[in-house]
Amino acid sequence: MPAVIPEDSVGLVTPQRFHFEQPLPLSCGRTLDSWDLMVETYGELNADASNAVLICHALSGHHHAAGYHSMEDRKPGWWDSAIGPGKAIDTNRFFVVSLNNLGGCHGSTGPNSINPDTNKPYGPDFPIMTVQDWVHSQARLADRLGVEQWAAVVGGSLGGMQALQWSITYPERLRHCVVIASAAKLSAQNIAFNEVARQAISKDPEFHKGHYYEQDTVPRTGLMLARMVGHITYLSDDGMRDKFGRELKDGKISFDFNPQFEVESYLQYQGERFSSSFDANTYLLMTKALDYFDPAGDHGDDLATALAPATSRFLVVSFTTDWRFSPERSRELVDALVAARKDVSYAEIDAPQGHDAFLIPIPRYMEVFGGYMNRIADALPQSKGENDNAR
Amino acid sequence: MPAVIPEDSVGLVTPQRFHFEQPLPLSCGRTLDSWDLMVETYGELNADASNAVLICHALSGHHHAAGYHSMEDRKPGWWDSAIGPGKAIDTNRFFVVSLNNLGGCHGSTGPNSINPDTNKPYGPDFPIMTVQDWVHSQARLADRLGVEQWAAVVGGSLGGMQALQWSITYPERLRHCVVIASAAKLSAQNIAFNEVARQAISKDPEFHKGHYYEQDTVPRTGLMLARMVGHITYLSDDGMRDKFGRELKDGKISFDFNPQFEVESYLQYQGERFSSSFDANTYLLMTKALDYFDPAGDHGDDLATALAPATSRFLVVSFTTDWRFSPERSRELVDALVAARKDVSYAEIDAPQGHDAFLIPIPRYMEVFGGYMNRIADALPQSKGENDNAR
Repeated sequence: MPAVIPEDSVGLVTPQRFHFEQPLPLSCGRTLDSWDLMVETYGELNADASNAVLICHALSGHHHAAGYHSMEDRKPGWWDSAIGPGKAIDTNRFFVVSLNNLGGCHGSTGPNSINPDTNKPYGPDFPIMTVQDWVHSQARLADRLGVEQWAAVVGGSLGGMQALQWSITYPERLRHCVVIASAAKLSAQNIAFNEVARQAISKDPEFHKGHYYEQDTVPRTGLMLARMVGHITYLSDDGMRDKFGRELKDGKISFDFNPQFEVESYLQYQGERFSSSFDANTYLLMTKALDYFDPAGDHGDDLATALAPATSRFLVVSFTTDWRFSPERSRELVDALVAARKDVSYAEIDAPQGHDAFLIPIPRYMEVFGGYMNRIADALPQSKGENDNAR
Repeated sequence: MPAVIPEDSVGLVTPQRFHFEQPLPLSCGRTLDSWDLMVETYGELNADASNAVLICHALSGHHHAAGYHSMEDRKPGWWDSAIGPGKAIDTNRFFVVSLNNLGGCHGSTGPNSINPDTNKPYGPDFPIMTVQDWVHSQARLADRLGVEQWAAVVGGSLGGMQALQWSITYPERLRHCVVIASAAKLSAQNIAFNEVARQAISKDPEFHKGHYYEQDTVPRTGLMLARMVGHITYLSDDGMRDKFGRELKDGKISFDFNPQFEVESYLQYQGERFSSSFDANTYLLMTKALDYFDPAGDHGDDLATALAPATSRFLVVSFTTDWRFSPERSRELVDALVAARKDVSYAEIDAPQGHDAFLIPIPRYMEVFGGYMNRIADALPQSKGENDNAR
């Protein structure tokens, strides 16, 4: 619990539920007739609504990106390191919008919501979502908030894919696109890891073909295994060596199958914690959205052609030891943006933490990211406060 | 089925069972009072028993390394690409010995053998084996075969660890040590992947704490998941891209959870095939032996000191895209061997196939490996046949 909320925190925040009655046509051919999004906002929208920044979340993320829900919270939102007063996404200057995506399990309409047609949870009948679908739903949210054009759409990992899709689908509705630790499509290896996770969940006897809610159970083992595999791919080999090495929990080999190496206990703990807090059907959906994302797919695998409609400027960031979304994939994206004659800045950050680095306030990363965001803010119409303090 | 057995094959082979009544003290403190090893041999032992080569197998390997068991066999032994007349390990010149290690599930004493104390399968009560234990059991086998000193002990992956342990434990009993695609210890990442596999197996409800034999069932899902994870780590990211790319089985996205990408079907097939042919308790044991191997551990993490007793010469081979046992790990081993003033040759083979490369007859690999083995053979006392043919 934070005895005192840090000065550079957005402080206590309250999620809001936005209900939409506008039917949302989906890539799969189905339509969501009515749907909810859970949303948090930080900072204030300026007079001409030009300072709004959309945060798109990754696989297991949600709307709670910054600040605390109560004084009892032990931890702040998942991207508190980057969002707050004076931080990379400076809430003194930006109006920051963070949502739980459709299909999620943190309050937005998803598999664990009640299907109005059946009065039971959607479960496995919830439609499979794509990055494109999320972007459309986020555009409806922007309409509701009175945001005609985002100052920036920002995301890491699966969130970066959403930012990229925004630049293609709604080019006129964002000025900047920030794609961090992401890729224009998954590799076969990425898909393979996702498939292991899906098999682990769907073959768990407690999965009940996705209808586990009615059985009052949860495919805990499957989720735990999925998270363990995921976690290994979020960390780098070097990072794991630095963090765990071959340290033994009790100092010596026990010749049994209990966890002995520190890394085993850590993974089990992470997996078990996750399995009691995340919805299995949502996990399946999120991995499918990752697998399906491939904007170049409809353009003969020519990413530059796919990116042609974009009019925003781009910041692309990668991390040296990220092997899940390696710098190579970011460079492919940058090359395609250059080929499509877009304005793109690229930074490859030297970091031992693997894919997880995008959540960590690494100084050079925050300088590059914060520098880019501050230049966006500098171009905004001057607010009164800024006039008073800085000029 | 091979309509005709290829000329460079060792041909039809028959495994032999060797029974040992000598108690074998194990690292865990327990003793195996009597035990069996399943063995195949190829080629002929020469008069002074100086041409024997021991093949040590990897995680899922066994004694059937080369040739065919019957004319109906569709595939030869697992390392047929390297063992045979005129091949890298030339059976015209060497007497090749290949065994199923203790704890295995292909006929040697292991968890699915009957425990003489209980008249039931050992199951989870089979002692946890170490690389050191295997080397001791292999030394007893050498005694039985009348092999005082191996011309070479050869292994890839976990097999390479056994070869390395031989050079330390029985330095006078081998002249050459060939360590391929291996490492002097696992990284935290390797251990983490093994732990995922173990959790998948042991948390499968059909595992029954290892007593699944009595329940007439098999933890098929757990084994399948373990194999899927393993398989991803055996292939390289590049190799998977070349092999599968993002190809869809039916040409288009189906918006459901059936396997759609080629890589998903491939992994499921591999996983399911494995789950019906391999023993779960053996898989657990093998991964533990991998995790525990760390000869430098008893020497303050100083590998050169651990290697000090060795008197053999060494060939170390790695493959550029092998990220399970990366070239970096082989170079660490080579550096330690050099520091310990051992005679070591090292080759890093450019290959896209990842860890799997060690099983593939890549031309430069076979040249380096075969060249090294042929120089060993050249130093043997000339056999009558060689006299006749070559000199």
